[in-house]
Order: sequence, then C-alpha cells, then structure tokens
Amino acid sequence: MRRYVFALLTIACVVPAISRAQTNSASQAARTWRQQHERAIVDEFVALLTIPNVSSDRANIQRNAAAIVAMMEKRGIAARTVSVTGGNPVVFGEIRTPGATRTIGFYAHYDGQPLDPKEWASPPFEPTLRDKRVDEGGRVVALPPAGGRFDPEWRLYARGASDDKAPIVSLVTAIDAIRAAGLAFKSNIKFMFEGEEEAGSANLEATVAANSALFSADLWLICDGPLYQTRQQSVVFGARGVNRVDITVYGPRTELHSGHYGNWAPNPALSLARLLTSMKDDNGRVLINRFYDQVEPLGPVERKALDEAPAIDAMLMDQLWLGASDGKPQTINELIAVPSLNIRGMASSRIGAQSSNVIPSSADATLDIRTVKGMDPRTTTGLVLDHIRRQGFFVVDRDPTAEERRSHPKVAKVVVVGPAGIGSRTPMDLPISAEVIRVVESARGRVVKLPTMGGGLPLQEIERPLGTKTIVIPIGNHDNNQHSFDENLRIQNLWDGIELMAALLTM
Amino acid sequence: MRRYVFALLTIACVVPAISRAQTNSASQAARTWRQQHERAIVDEFVALLTIPNVSSDRANIQRNAAAIVAMMEKRGIAARTVSVTGGNPVVFGEIRTPGATRTIGFYAHYDGQPLDPKEWASPPFEPTLRDKRVDEGGRVVALPPAGGRFDPEWRLYARGASDDKAPIVSLVTAIDAIRAAGLAFKSNIKFMFEGEEEAGSANLEATVAANSALFSADLWLICDGPLYQTRQQSVVFGARGVNRVDITVYGPRTELHSGHYGNWAPNPALSLARLLTSMKDDNGRVLINRFYDQVEPLGPVERKALDEAPAIDAMLMDQLWLGASDGKPQTINELIAVPSLNIRGMASSRIGAQSSNVIPSSADATLDIRTVKGMDPRTTTGLVLDHIRRQGFFVVDRDPTAEERRSHPKVAKVVVVGPAGIGSRTPMDLPISAEVIRVVESARGRVVKLPTMGGGLPLQEIERPLGTKTIVIPIGNHDNNQHSFDENLRIQNLWDGIELMAALLTM
Repeated sequence: MRRYVFALLTIACVVPAISRAQTNSASQAARTWRQQHERAIVDEFVALLTIPNVSSDRANIQRNAAAIVAMMEKRGIAARTVSVTGGNPVVFGEIRTPGATRTIGFYAHYDGQPLDPKEWASPPFEPTLRDKRVDEGGRVVALPPAGGRFDPEWRLYARGASDDKAPIVSLVTAIDAIRAAGLAFKSNIKFMFEGEEEAGSANLEATVAANSALFSADLWLICDGPLYQTRQQSVVFGARGVNRVDITVYGPRTELHSGHYGNWAPNPALSLARLLTSMKDDNGRVLINRFYDQVEPLGPVERKALDEAPAIDAMLMDQLWLGASDGKPQTINELIAVPSLNIRGMASSRIGAQSSNVIPSSADATLDIRTVKGMDPRTTTGLVLDHIRRQGFFVVDRDPTAEERRSHPKVAKVVVVGPAGIGSRTPMDLPISAEVIRVVESARGRVVKLPTMGGGLPLQEIERPLGTKTIVIPIGNHDNNQHSFDENLRIQNLWDGIELMAALLTM
Repeated sequence: MRRYVFALLTIACVVPAISRAQTNSASQAARTWRQQHERAIVDEFVALLTIPNVSSDRANIQRNAAAIVAMMEKRGIAARTVSVTGGNPVVFGEIRTPGATRTIGFYAHYDGQPLDPKEWASPPFEPTLRDKRVDEGGRVVALPPAGGRFDPEWRLYARGASDDKAPIVSLVTAIDAIRAAGLAFKSNIKFMFEGEEEAGSANLEATVAANSALFSADLWLICDGPLYQTRQQSVVFGARGVNRVDITVYGPRTELHSGHYGNWAPNPALSLARLLTSMKDDNGRVLINRFYDQVEPLGPVERKALDEAPAIDAMLMDQLWLGASDGKPQTINELIAVPSLNIRGMASSRIGAQSSNVIPSSADATLDIRTVKGMDPRTTTGLVLDHIRRQGFFVVDRDPTAEERRSHPKVAKVVVVGPAGIGSRTPMDLPISAEVIRVVESARGRVVKLPTMGGGLPLQEIERPLGTKTIVIPIGNHDNNQHSFDENLRIQNLWDGIELMAALLTM
C-alpha cells in the first residue's frame, strides 16, 4: 500500500471565490508587484525549497533558519533565531511601527514531514514546476524567463511547497510590495517561523515561554493549512488536539499452531477486535463513558458560520468512493468540531499469502484521539484506560510479565505517546476576529469561517505562554498532498497568498 | 516479531511412557539392531536431511525423491516415483509378502515448510546435533564415532528432522532390523512418500487416483505429526480440514488525514473489528448461523478415549502464559475435535511509531476455518459469506469497483483460498483400529488415543480415491518446532520410532 495521505481532495465543482469586492489597497499593490516580479518571487521560493527540511535533519534545519533570517535581513527586518536545548531554532523577526498600538504576529513553519524520495515523481528537494497535478498527467515545465508569466494553474512540486514555506515567501514578498507602493504598516509586526511543527512542536511552548517578551503580541495569525475544499479562502478559529494511544493485547506466549490449539487458546486479534468494537457505536459515536463531558459546545455564532459554509459532504463521498459516512445527520464540518477516536492502524501476525496457520501471540492497534476546546486530554486518555479496564483487561504501560499474563484472563499494554494534544478555539465574535475576517474578505472576497480545523496546530503552544489569541489563515491549495509524497503548491495560491498577507500585514 | 510457531510445548511433568509390557518381538529386534548401528542410522538420516526440501524447490525435491528411491532399492524394495503434471513426485515402494491377505500402507512426506535461514541457530540443511534445545542453551555436539552411543536426549536440528523425514528413516531401519533378526512380514507393505504436503497436498489426490491400483491398501498409516504433549505415544484417528478465507473491508479510496476527516469518513479497521467480533462469542463459540449443523458428533468410544487422555490444559496454560482459555468447560482435546474459526492475522495501515495520523483505506484479516467429519467445507465457507452479508456488507470476490464502493455503505472482498479442507475421522472401534492400538501398545506401552488431531493431514486425499481408511501414527517429539525455525528431532524419538515401525511393519 502506498503511504498516501489524501489530505484534501480536488472538488470538481469550484465555488467562485470572488463574491465580495476585493478593495484592499495593499493587496492590490501586491498584485501589481507580483505581476512584475513573478520569476524573481518563484526563484526565491525555489531557493528556500531546495534546502531539505525534515525536522530531524539538524544541519539542514540550521541552513533553513539561516536562509530565512537572510531573507528578512535583506528587507531590513531585524531577525534572529532563538531555541531551547534540544529544540530546532525558531526564527524571530520584527517590524516596529512608530505609533502602533498593537502587535500582530505571523506564524509559519519551515520544517516538513518526513518522506521517502522513492515515492516522489520528482526529487522532493528539487522544486519542479508542472502544468497540472502529477496524478492527472502533469508534465514538467520550465520556469518562464524573467518578465514572463506563470500559468496560475501550474503547480510547484517540493516538500514544504504548501506546508509550510509558502506563507514565508508570501510574507516577505508582500513586504516588498507594500514598501514599493509606499504604503504604511499600522501595527507592529512579528514573525515566528518554527522548525519542528511536523515533529509535534515539542519545544515550541518552552521556546516561546523562554522568550515571552520577544514573542508577545495581541494576536498570532497561524499561516498554515489548506484552503476549504471548494477552493474558497477560509479563516479558521481553532484546531483539535491530537493524542496517540498504542494498545497491545496478548494471547499465547508465542504464535501457536491454529490446528493444535484453535478453539482453546484465546486469539488476541479477536480480543482486540472486541475491544475496539466496544469503543464506538454503529454511527461512529464514541461509547467511552464521559468521553464528551468536557466538550465546550459551539456557540450561536460558530453554529451560524457552519451553516453558512458550502456543503461538501456529497462531493467528498463521491471523490472518496464512500457509500456511507459516520455521524449522520451531522456534516463533516460539524463533526470535525467535536472530539474523535480513530484507529490509525492494526496489526497481528500476517495476512493473506504471508499468513501462517497460527493463533497470533499479540495484536496491536494505534488510536488517535482528538480533543476540542474544554477537554483536558489527560482526563480523556484516562477515560480510555478506564474503558479498557471495564472490558476486563488488566492494563500495564510496559510489557507485561509472564506472571501477569498467567494471572489475568485479559492483559493489555496501553501507552499514551507524546505530549498531550489540547484543542483550541478562539471566539469568532471577538472584535479582533471580526476585524481579521473583514481584512481577509477585503483581499480575497467572501470567506468560509470555520470554528476549528479537524487537524492539529500548535495554537495552545503559543496562546498559553503568551496569554494571547490565535487565528488560522491558510493559503495552500486543498489538494496539495501535504504530509504525503508529491506535495505541491498551485501557483495561483501563492499569488493569492501574497495579496492576503499584504492585507493582513497592513491591518 | 519472530515467526515462531510454537507447535507443541515442553511439558515439565512427563508421564512415564512404559505402563504396559512392551513385548513386540520386531520392536525388540529393532532395539538391538539400533543399539549396534546408531551412527550408521544417523548418518543415513543426516544425508537425507542435507537435501533441501521446500516444496517449491523443484530441483531439490527431485533429489529428495531420488535419494528415497535409492534408500529403498538398497533394501531390495521395488521403488519408483509417480506424479501428475505440475505435481511433485510421490515415491512409491512395495514389499510383497507371499500368502499375505492384506496390505498395510505407510505414508510420510519428504518436503518441509518454507523457512528463513536467518532465523535458524544453525543452517537448516546442515543437520546439527545439540545436547538439548537451542532455547534452553543447547550446545553443538559432534556425532559419536561408529560403535559409539548417542545420548537419547540429544536433538538433531534440521528442516524435516521431525516433519517428516524421521518416519522414512525409521521405516527403512526397521526393515533392516526385521531382516537381520530373521523375522517375517505378514502383510503386503506399501510406501507413499509425498513431496508437497507442506504446500497443501494439492496434487496428492489426483496422483493417487491416477495410480489407484498401485496405492490400493486396506489401511494407510499416516506417519506424521508429534506425540502427545506428555511425551506419551499417541494414535490419532482423524484430522481437521483447514480452509483459508481472506477478508478485506474498505474505507475511503486512499488513506485520509484523521484530523480533516476523523469522525466522518468510516474507518475500515473498526468495520473489520466489528465484523470479526460478530463471528464469535466471549467464550470462543462461533456465532455464524448453522456453523455446527453438519458436525458428526463423537461417539461413546471416542468420548471415552478423550476422558482417558491425560489432562494437559493447566500445564499448557502455564507454559503458554495464558490466564484463560476459550471453550470452557471443554478441554483442549475436546475442542480440537470440533470445528474452529481462527483469525490468523489482521492488518490495516501502520501501528506505533510507524503509524500516520490517518483513517486507513482498507483493513484485512485472514481466517482459517477448520472442519471436522460430516462438514462440507464449501457449505461452511458459504455460511461465512452469508454471515458477512447479514452484517450489511456487499460482498465481492475480487477488488470492488469505485462504483460498487460508492453505492454500498459497507463493502467486503472475501476470497476462499485454495482447495477445500475436509475433516476426517476413522472409527476407533473398527477391528483394524483396535489391532493398530494393540500393536502400537506392544511396542510403546499404553497409548493416548485421540479421535482427531487439531491440524490438517491429507487423509481424505488418500481415503477418497482408494476407498480406504487412515490412522495417524506420530513419532516426532511434541516440542519439535515443526513449521518454524530450529525444527528438531529428539534422538530418543527416532529410536522409539524405529521400534514402533518394526512392530507395525510386521502386523
């Protein structure tokens, strides 16, 4: 099986993005500037994408950080890196605006997901322009000469093209445009470019906390994630927290001949199946006691925003070859705003032609549990443990001993892996929220407002140490293959991103 | 995970094997002969074990067959190979006894299970003598010189040492002993040594049917399988048939980001878990409608034999680190005499550190379904298909199309793999059954009589085309690692096997 994470899909029916007047003068200036400098903008982007950016590749991570500092210094922006022991550098930059009464921060990350180059149509760190998606037969095209124009439907293929180096290039280009047009900043501006978001932002909160004066701001705009599946601009006010739980259940000490022992030795694959089945009902609702208790429900403004979001369920089902969806009658947008329990994978012995006539010795499942605002993830994972115990399992958090296995009918190892993922949601009706929506719409037309995205972002890692708020501003295309091979950015999304950043930089 | 099939385990408490007078003159002659020729016997065995014997290795399979023909011709036994197109050769041999009124056949197989040499403590086709089990610290020992004696607890490690070349060497050695002692055969004797038992005996029935006059016999003794777990000699009157069923259930077209789609896109791993859970109750009883309907129950003689078999459940649970067993209050011996449904393995996406934050696209399980006498396996696998449909699945036997996936809430691919495995049981109270028990006891003392073994053997493949009966006579040690790495034969089992075969050859 190819490790293809179909993050977001091409929807045939694209809703026209321009349904409100796009009147923002900074974004208009950005368009003019971009039209005159397309090749140079892409050249700078390509140079950044050429530096490998997997979080664990410390040498190249340093090169990325240094390149971004240089990109800012070239614009006269005070820039530096900060880090904590063991953490990748966070690039900090700042534009102080005389007389400004507030500070707006722009967050993005320069690291990318781990990858296997063999899966890619072209090397992930040799940015490659194509006339359409690889899986739709896209062919490599040469960069147009300086002064030439790019077809906006072309796509630039490289790790990080969409997730999440595009906002960095959009921001510095927008600054060039703002200055060239003689426009003024109104707020103080700060930048935070993280180098280990794809590794779980394990050091971000500590880095921000250790440099809280540096990073203090009235609002941090989290420039990450893809646009809505209709290609409309979205503004997203939160994210779910993600928590991984690894479960192993045990059968006999070693694999047993299924003839000699079948019917007698308990099968751990069946025991695991039974346990997983107990966790959710037929419609996908989690049956773990008190699982939903702490959820802070959506308010009327958030519910109204969901009602206004274009319906995508039927289109997605068609695209995804699905004959049913869970959680009926709720929509996907409603369902990603509530907590989830998902089986990431299962394994027990071998299947098909590789299978042996055995009773497996153990069976494994990995879950992810996504929390929303109001939930304490440690409480939630504790409820999962309680549930497993209530199903009759003796639960340990390391390999059970022979004696533990002998003395309990059912034994499970349950390990909650990694930092607790906390859900986060900024109220949509705060004055600053309303202002951000207005500014985005002045640049990009009517937006889709979502209370939360389904995935995780390091919102709490920024909000908690600074006591500030976050709002998510995506610019990447939804069909960008982020987290998978053949990640790409649609050129028009880069152009739109530059205009959007120009508007937000001058709010 | 090591691919360790713990076929049968060492039981600390060994029941003394000698509780009846061992008075068989042929087996006494065999003992004397063996004591005088230990090194030569083992040398001939080692030479046979040195020839690789994986069924698919056609060239070496031919070498094995030729070597066995030569071993028989050396004893003046008429021998040849027969085969059908595409099948491995079956070695046939015959001793005609003037005045004999019946024919006794001896079946064994010379092929062995596929293997990975890296898993073995010593190369599988370089037979290696050790002073005890490898996993108990056994060290390599040199073969004693001619005239020297072997420690009976030593073990000979090689693929096929136990399963199933030991009976072949035991038989030809027993013939040497019988002749040296001037004893006479009473029956006509036939030999059938198969070359693809471990590949499912796919061509055995056709080969036997095409040569039915050659293979006709009043009884075939199936010399295969391990002794009872107490080390007592067993005589087994049947086997279960094994049937493999591969199940795939489907979720979204490709793996989906569990954040963006979690709670909405149905998870195939959970769907599979739910399906498997529906198939058995908490105590391991199969819930598939009519699953047990065709079972021919054990008769009073068979039930009495089970009652007399030494209890092994508690010892096995201790050895296997089990805190529970299925099928209570029945014992393992009772449970392997009824049909079973077992999960061989499960797989969906990836687990643990290799997992991604995805909803898998599909989930797989492989089942084996063991049938007993009376059951038509095609009916039984049909019931499994019916059950899956009743759980709401649209069932196909090849990859479903996009449209099939879109138009059905749940879709499963279900493939019944390979030839149907039929359960078989020879009545214990036939005169020939009683005679075999008497003869075995005259050589080996009190035996454990079992109506069936839990695993499969090609009994029907011999019974059907010839209209004859089969009885299973094991000689290998129970802790022989058959089907796994480090297969071995305990030397005493070879000595005992020679004596046993001498008794049976002269019945």
